[in-house]
Amino acid sequence: MRNDQRDNNELRSITIIPDFVKHPEGSVLIQAGGTKVICNASIEDKVPPFMRGQKKGWITAEYAMLPRATNQRNIRESSKGKVSGRTMEIQRLIGRALRSVVDLDQIGERTVWVDCDVIQADGGTRTASITGAFVAVVLAFGKLIADNKIEKMPVSDFLSAISVGVLSDGTEVLDLNYGEDSEAHVDMNVVMTGAGEFVEIQGTGEEATFTNSQLQAMLGLANEGMLKINTIQKEILGELADKIGETKISREDL
Amino acid sequence: MRNDQRDNNELRSITIIPDFVKHPEGSVLIQAGGTKVICNASIEDKVPPFMRGQKKGWITAEYAMLPRATNQRNIRESSKGKVSGRTMEIQRLIGRALRSVVDLDQIGERTVWVDCDVIQADGGTRTASITGAFVAVVLAFGKLIADNKIEKMPVSDFLSAISVGVLSDGTEVLDLNYGEDSEAHVDMNVVMTGAGEFVEIQGTGEEATFTNSQLQAMLGLANEGMLKINTIQKEILGELADKIGETKISREDL
Amino acid sequence: MRNDQRDNNELRSITIIPDFVKHPEGSVLIQAGGTKVICNASIEDKVPPFMRGQKKGWITAEYAMLPRATNQRNIRESSKGKVSGRTMEIQRLIGRALRSVVDLDQIGERTVWVDCDVIQADGGTRTASITGAFVAVVLAFGKLIADNKIEKMPVSDFLSAISVGVLSDGTEVLDLNYGEDSEAHVDMNVVMTGAGEFVEIQGTGEEATFTNSQLQAMLGLANEGMLKINTIQKEILGELADKIGETKISREDL
Amino acid sequence: MRNDQRDNNELRSITIIPDFVKHPEGSVLIQAGGTKVICNASIEDKVPPFMRGQKKGWITAEYAMLPRATNQRNIRESSKGKVSGRTMEIQRLIGRALRSVVDLDQIGERTVWVDCDVIQADGGTRTASITGAFVAVVLAFGKLIADNKIEKMPVSDFLSAISVGVLSDGTEVLDLNYGEDSEAHVDMNVVMTGAGEFVEIQGTGEEATFTNSQLQAMLGLANEGMLKINTIQKEILGELADKIGETKISREDL
Amino acid sequence: MRNDQRDNNELRSITIIPDFVKHPEGSVLIQAGGTKVICNASIEDKVPPFMRGQKKGWITAEYAMLPRATNQRNIRESSKGKVSGRTMEIQRLIGRALRSVVDLDQIGERTVWVDCDVIQADGGTRTASITGAFVAVVLAFGKLIADNKIEKMPVSDFLSAISVGVLSDGTEVLDLNYGEDSEAHVDMNVVMTGAGEFVEIQGTGEEATFTNSQLQAMLGLANEGMLKINTIQKEILGELADKIGETKISREDL
Amino acid sequence: MRNDQRDNNELRSITIIPDFVKHPEGSVLIQAGGTKVICNASIEDKVPPFMRGQKKGWITAEYAMLPRATNQRNIRESSKGKVSGRTMEIQRLIGRALRSVVDLDQIGERTVWVDCDVIQADGGTRTASITGAFVAVVLAFGKLIADNKIEKMPVSDFLSAISVGVLSDGTEVLDLNYGEDSEAHVDMNVVMTGAGEFVEIQGTGEEATFTNSQLQAMLGLANEGMLKINTIQKEILGELADKIGETKISREDL
Repeated sequence: MRNDQRDNNELRSITIIPDFVKHPEGSVLIQAGGTKVICNASIEDKVPPFMRGQKKGWITAEYAMLPRATNQRNIRESSKGKVSGRTMEIQRLIGRALRSVVDLDQIGERTVWVDCDVIQADGGTRTASITGAFVAVVLAFGKLIADNKIEKMPVSDFLSAISVGVLSDGTEVLDLNYGEDSEAHVDMNVVMTGAGEFVEIQGTGEEATFTNSQLQAMLGLANEGMLKINTIQKEILGELADKIGETKISREDL
Repeated sequence: MRNDQRDNNELRSITIIPDFVKHPEGSVLIQAGGTKVICNASIEDKVPPFMRGQKKGWITAEYAMLPRATNQRNIRESSKGKVSGRTMEIQRLIGRALRSVVDLDQIGERTVWVDCDVIQADGGTRTASITGAFVAVVLAFGKLIADNKIEKMPVSDFLSAISVGVLSDGTEVLDLNYGEDSEAHVDMNVVMTGAGEFVEIQGTGEEATFTNSQLQAMLGLANEGMLKINTIQKEILGELADKIGETKISREDL
Repeated sequence: MRNDQRDNNELRSITIIPDFVKHPEGSVLIQAGGTKVICNASIEDKVPPFMRGQKKGWITAEYAMLPRATNQRNIRESSKGKVSGRTMEIQRLIGRALRSVVDLDQIGERTVWVDCDVIQADGGTRTASITGAFVAVVLAFGKLIADNKIEKMPVSDFLSAISVGVLSDGTEVLDLNYGEDSEAHVDMNVVMTGAGEFVEIQGTGEEATFTNSQLQAMLGLANEGMLKINTIQKEILGELADKIGETKISREDL
Repeated sequence: MRNDQRDNNELRSITIIPDFVKHPEGSVLIQAGGTKVICNASIEDKVPPFMRGQKKGWITAEYAMLPRATNQRNIRESSKGKVSGRTMEIQRLIGRALRSVVDLDQIGERTVWVDCDVIQADGGTRTASITGAFVAVVLAFGKLIADNKIEKMPVSDFLSAISVGVLSDGTEVLDLNYGEDSEAHVDMNVVMTGAGEFVEIQGTGEEATFTNSQLQAMLGLANEGMLKINTIQKEILGELADKIGETKISREDL
Repeated sequence: MRNDQRDNNELRSITIIPDFVKHPEGSVLIQAGGTKVICNASIEDKVPPFMRGQKKGWITAEYAMLPRATNQRNIRESSKGKVSGRTMEIQRLIGRALRSVVDLDQIGERTVWVDCDVIQADGGTRTASITGAFVAVVLAFGKLIADNKIEKMPVSDFLSAISVGVLSDGTEVLDLNYGEDSEAHVDMNVVMTGAGEFVEIQGTGEEATFTNSQLQAMLGLANEGMLKINTIQKEILGELADKIGETKISREDL
Repeated sequence: MRNDQRDNNELRSITIIPDFVKHPEGSVLIQAGGTKVICNASIEDKVPPFMRGQKKGWITAEYAMLPRATNQRNIRESSKGKVSGRTMEIQRLIGRALRSVVDLDQIGERTVWVDCDVIQADGGTRTASITGAFVAVVLAFGKLIADNKIEKMPVSDFLSAISVGVLSDGTEVLDLNYGEDSEAHVDMNVVMTGAGEFVEIQGTGEEATFTNSQLQAMLGLANEGMLKINTIQKEILGELADKIGETKISREDL
């Protein structure tokens, strides 16, 4: 039995509140069980220096936790004067994931800044960030369309993320909470498209290893979970959801 | 007429939601008009090195804004690797203000970490932070009492803060929103106790000056506002409010 | 009786030595009792990026103490790699105060860098810095006029600063030295114009509070002190003093 | 055809030179095609503060590239004053991987510092680092055994890492060089034990996605490559290789 | 002819004002021509961690310039968040030089912090710093003797420093001012004891070279200058000067 | 007898391996006894901002040690977030030395980045760096000539460096190894041209002093050593060696 009585393939309850903060072009609060993340997408009308003059845009992400998002207070990264390795890994992951479904050629020389700020943490903060950030980014693009700054939704498919893992008793489970995550032998984060393809797989056995059949079992659970998450995202996005997929991203060299 | 139709002595609507984040000993979300701040009070069972062995506690505060709390996205201070002068000024002010009504001798060798994180800004973020942080700190002390770690509420009086100012047409007003703050000739932050005494007065004429009679008019408005804010704090604190004032802070040398 | 036998409304002896360092456009050493501050004003023929193209100038201030300006040696801020909150608060205050009496439109796209370096500290370093920096800035503008770079003195009025406070026995006093400052219940810094208007008021009761009548008593003392300081500034400035006030700063929206 | 005429399942030539630097307890130079990494393992007789008193050891890794290890010179991270996100990700990965096959309980309160310094880069620097670091760490433990500081080899199994990917024409390949890596649609790093279990899988489709059958094809290639790498490691380690596996790591909760 | 009409072997006028700042145990203002440096020596009753328990003391030096000590304003190193290479070189030089004539065994577990702060620069700031710092350190030791904390002056000999160089016309000169330093082909700083032995020689031909006979000519000039500087130091130190040399430093291994 | 049986005027064995790393324009591994340094010279087709538009080039050097180049592991400077004073001194020295024999006017608006990375240290790392860097720089210029980017070798003379010192028994010796360096009373680094002129002399008596006759003895040893080093450099450079000296550097003002 899981520590919160869920079935092995059962997600925690997910709520996405759109327009949570008034200033950003796209903003949501995503709650997944006890994990709460504010995801803001800001549009800036210029690109970083290394991309100037290419007539395409850029998406970058930042991630942070409030000091007391966790059970024990963490020192603020601004006070330490530097960003931790864990934070850097997560924000690079979020940015990479979002770029895989956005056609940067269509958004012009604009930067989308995605800010994921965890206000309460209970496991799965990076996957909730990706799931929520996707909605915030689509909302922001919706605003650009409404303002006649771009013509169509530059997003090729839905995108969501979920964690899977192997608990200490050998059970594969979906969507680990903090208690499960702390004792799991294997922890895997999976980012997938609406079409069920992988964008990113990161599986780690900290002081443990895993076999290919365990890998397959975990990927199966991730797939199940992702279908449900996509449905929730669709509902929140309403009409904007229908515009997703109008854009196909083709790599010239493919 | 003010830009949001308020009277000159009228506060914006204030809401304080207790227990907003689950982990901290004390936590509130305070909303004052369009300004929203999460105030968390965390109790740590030790004091900073410079206070060890004195059998008394310490209160310190940190303040930050989410990058998109404002209309234009700000660079995250953790990315810049340093905290701005404005942030430092505000967090020093919050800590000083709270220490003026807390008897540090009664809390033992503990540190109260107060984190004020602005998730949406519309003027008055530092005063809302103080007003909300006071409630969070009392909630945290309430938990220490409930856990039999301290005996009585170590708080001598209510504490709240509000801004007043002189608009460009010469009118003195209470509780400036962002639009007013931007064009005001004088901006003053006042921190007061429930008994109506001053804890801190910071009045600034940026590219302007002010007279003693303008000062008096502003202090009168602040006093009016503070009475209303105290009532709201009292309501949220319920029974804990009655314990405030059991403690008298006396300076030996007085 | 005060610890140095002064009357409650008595300033410490103030000396201002002009042209103390040879390179800066304006330079003074100000001594106020045991407090000694070198105030240098440097003119740079460009403005910071955020002000370019506006055809107006900028004034910014930096403040520091030599490591052994105080009784106990402080770690050098360059060694720590960051500027303390206290330093930032003070340099922001000095800059703001000077900008209130200088017409930035008249100085062209130039930056006035004001450096206040405390070589010996005995209380009141920030107020001595403002009083001395005002003289250094006027001297620097005098040089710009002599060099035919600007036509008239872009300064609307005299500017000076002084501390007032409430000692532990309840007495209000003017110009606290270090010993008084350490034990005072209320510490207030007042910046005023020659016309007697307030530019900035910062009053703090660290672990104490104060009433409106105490506030009025302190402001009265500040006013008395400021008249004497203005006289000293006038003497040092000689003919340049007469040019102050030729400029009126008007805020268009007033 | 691959850009260097290799078969899709063909490794580049790998050479491991033991005792490359004289001071460290374990040191190798690993060359994998044009990639050259110095891997040093240093034993320190204490553990970091967060592990003191637990009677177990710690392994941590650092990774860096010489500025001109790459075709274009990179700014030195010590000059920038901070370590990049990429570097942090890699050094966290190396440390995690090594900890999965080392029994920290057996090494006493010691820290193994693993330094992987890339002197020439041509793709696959992080996987070469893990493969070489494993050998350096076993050499260092061999020295501890020879010095009678520990009794048996605290390593449960061989450990190596390799990259696999999907090129732009859809082919799955083993051990990508820099040219291949730059244009690949999918890049995956796999860390495996001698027994063929996964320690870490990190697969990324930058601006592309991949299917489960592509994943399986890549994992098959990784498995093939790993067998050959283990043979090379065994040869270099000589008698020490036979001691690997004497230790079984058991998680109590399993 | 030199740019200030001095003879080639002529020092600029040197003045040393003792007790310039009131707090430090030893303090002087040294003026050498247009160069003015405040040298403070502070005694701290503990040593840095790496020297604890050795029953001996330590001397360390820091050096800085006020931003406008030079003709063009420099950015404050505390604002830049780091100390420049030039500053580091100079402060290491000052510390090393002073340690060569002080018997650290005699001062107990104390640290002498030497702060050299240049308030006006006109060439030779590092040599003036050493010359002045020596006097400040002897004054500080004098205070330790007066306070019965140490018994005798722990200083084996006088110490002073001067610059010499080769101008662009090939002339060797003593004590270069800023104008000479800027155009010199060779710049050499020499630190010597009262007995005429070298403590440190640093000669540099920036975009030029020099011969052994030029070296000898420069060292001859340095020797001449040093004798005059020692006389000035002696005068300022009065009775304390007589105590210098009571201590002989012997290296056990010699 | 020296600790490694060398005569007092005997160099350690020196090997210079050209083209050690494949990417840089010039690259060598220099081994001098147990000291091994990779010296890479990279050509960048632009100059730093302060030199733009002057139609001349720039040479700058960086120096680092791998953490375990020494007997005890050092903390990586990128982890500490800053470069040590020792590192800064050395890299400034290397850059200055190289600039003394290179005609910057001839290389156009290009920067030569010299990276000296010590992979194993046994005394004399800074002098080995200069000796090796000179060869790497000539190789890089050779490549510029071969690519028709410059016409002739912009190098006026050979350049090499060596350490000399006075051991604790009073003997003057050439080329100190780590053991000798640790106990020496005087340590001197000498940089000379092929013509036997000095570029830089840095002699230091740490807790000791030295006389002029000791200085002369040391300079004599340095001169002897330099002749042998030049021969080794010549051999490695082959035909390029003949081009050295075609360029004469003249200072206009000479």
